[in-house]
Amino acid sequence: MLYGAIEAGGTKFVCAVGDESLNIQKRASFPTTQPEETMKQVMDFFNQYKKELVAIGVGSFGPIDVHVDSTTYGYITSTPKLAWQNFDFVGTLKQAFDIPIAWTTDVNAAGYGEYAFGKGKGLSSVIYYTVGTGIGGGAIQEDRFIEGFSHPEMGHMLVTPHPEDHFGGNCPFHENCLEGMAAGPAIEQRAGKKGQDIPAEDPIWDMEAYYIAQCAYNTTLMFSPDVIIFGGGVMKQKHMVQKVHQTFSRLLNNYVKTPELENYIVTPYLEDDAGIFGCLALARQTKLDKK
Amino acid sequence: MLYGAIEAGGTKFVCAVGDESLNIQKRASFPTTQPEETMKQVMDFFNQYKKELVAIGVGSFGPIDVHVDSTTYGYITSTPKLAWQNFDFVGTLKQAFDIPIAWTTDVNAAGYGEYAFGKGKGLSSVIYYTVGTGIGGGAIQEDRFIEGFSHPEMGHMLVTPHPEDHFGGNCPFHENCLEGMAAGPAIEQRAGKKGQDIPAEDPIWDMEAYYIAQCAYNTTLMFSPDVIIFGGGVMKQKHMVQKVHQTFSRLLNNYVKTPELENYIVTPYLEDDAGIFGCLALARQTKLDKK
Repeated sequence: MLYGAIEAGGTKFVCAVGDESLNIQKRASFPTTQPEETMKQVMDFFNQYKKELVAIGVGSFGPIDVHVDSTTYGYITSTPKLAWQNFDFVGTLKQAFDIPIAWTTDVNAAGYGEYAFGKGKGLSSVIYYTVGTGIGGGAIQEDRFIEGFSHPEMGHMLVTPHPEDHFGGNCPFHENCLEGMAAGPAIEQRAGKKGQDIPAEDPIWDMEAYYIAQCAYNTTLMFSPDVIIFGGGVMKQKHMVQKVHQTFSRLLNNYVKTPELENYIVTPYLEDDAGIFGCLALARQTKLDKK
Repeated sequence: MLYGAIEAGGTKFVCAVGDESLNIQKRASFPTTQPEETMKQVMDFFNQYKKELVAIGVGSFGPIDVHVDSTTYGYITSTPKLAWQNFDFVGTLKQAFDIPIAWTTDVNAAGYGEYAFGKGKGLSSVIYYTVGTGIGGGAIQEDRFIEGFSHPEMGHMLVTPHPEDHFGGNCPFHENCLEGMAAGPAIEQRAGKKGQDIPAEDPIWDMEAYYIAQCAYNTTLMFSPDVIIFGGGVMKQKHMVQKVHQTFSRLLNNYVKTPELENYIVTPYLEDDAGIFGCLALARQTKLDKK
């Protein structure tokens, strides 16, 4: 018996199969090109395990349709990647594999990975952000994703510009949203070089921490979660978490008593594997639900 | 068989009993003074119905302890009302009435009222704000309150000051939080008169709408709920909802496709009765849970 996992990202797809304990048995990765090409590679990968495969969990770039009652459930919808617009992801999988398919956003899947195996394990309410080329967020409470008319788009929450920040933000939709002010490309445009080449003591990181701390602050006041996990490339700067803790404390000003910050605002235990393990865990969950 | 309801507000307590269909049979209200005095009136009220009473739902001012496993579950905790600090609300009720007691915040209870009977009826995900002397918010998804280490304190989310607003906010904790910038006292301090005496065409309402719209925007991006309901005194200004719709649309800039605004950003159907009906509905729910 094997579970399948597809972490469908904007630049690459990671596919894996895991055993009953969700240990990964095989993993492969394919560039995100056209649906026909990429999905053929995905299908070829899983066809090797067709007899043992009992469910697949998918975490996809979006926006996606997560409404079970919708006629376009399981589709990628209005993505800027034109070839993938209105692509029937779940339907395509279902045609080849008549097994339960779990379907959610890439960031929800990564959050679920941490909820099942990482820093959110054993907790009730987990919020996960990825801060990289873009910023996305997902929320899980008691095994359910927070959603309503659609999945959240937390990366576009509004932030107040840092008084010394003269960068206007680069989100094409919003003047001062988190993604436009704090994702990797904003750092790069501000500094004229990539984040990985900026030293830890550069004041640009204090600005960055100010935006991430506002995100953590709003998340705290709106969800009162048990943990807030920040993944993604930007958070690989080891000094960032401490900077975020300091600014978060200053902003919150002891208004509510959160868990200890070292256990409350954290980076992911599974690091870059949060997404693929989350997809496996979702596959197992959907299999259990269908029993 | 009767259900009991206690809407425990900072200035008054409203108590009611309702029949199996949650029609209110009797209602009374008492000023919030000292716990001994106010709770005696509450007890006297419910003692009249002691034989028929099967459960009580409480929506309380806070902060409160909602952690079932906590030793101070059911307490009002660090409220500025000193006499009520560390008051064991649920314990006090349990001593007199050995029946299930539902326990949540006042704003969660009002949200639950709308979820059960009002603008949230039949929907999956409902966010409720009250904009009055303070600002509070509650979130419900599939019959559960959104919470984690504690209940949310949504009224303290950060907002970006309006470019023409020279008022610095009056929250003693946070420089530019929603409550400090947009609750009733902020309007009054800005204008030098009470909100109800300010004409609809005064530009102060555009500022107010700007803050409420930021709240609706952040709520949309973080929860993608099915409806956002704004209750409380400030929202009784009939012109406000439309102003909020306009500013919300401008901020969101079509980034996500919400439900139609007339059905998405709304005022409560139950008006000032959302809280007491919410407490009754919670009483019924907790009775069902205990069966």
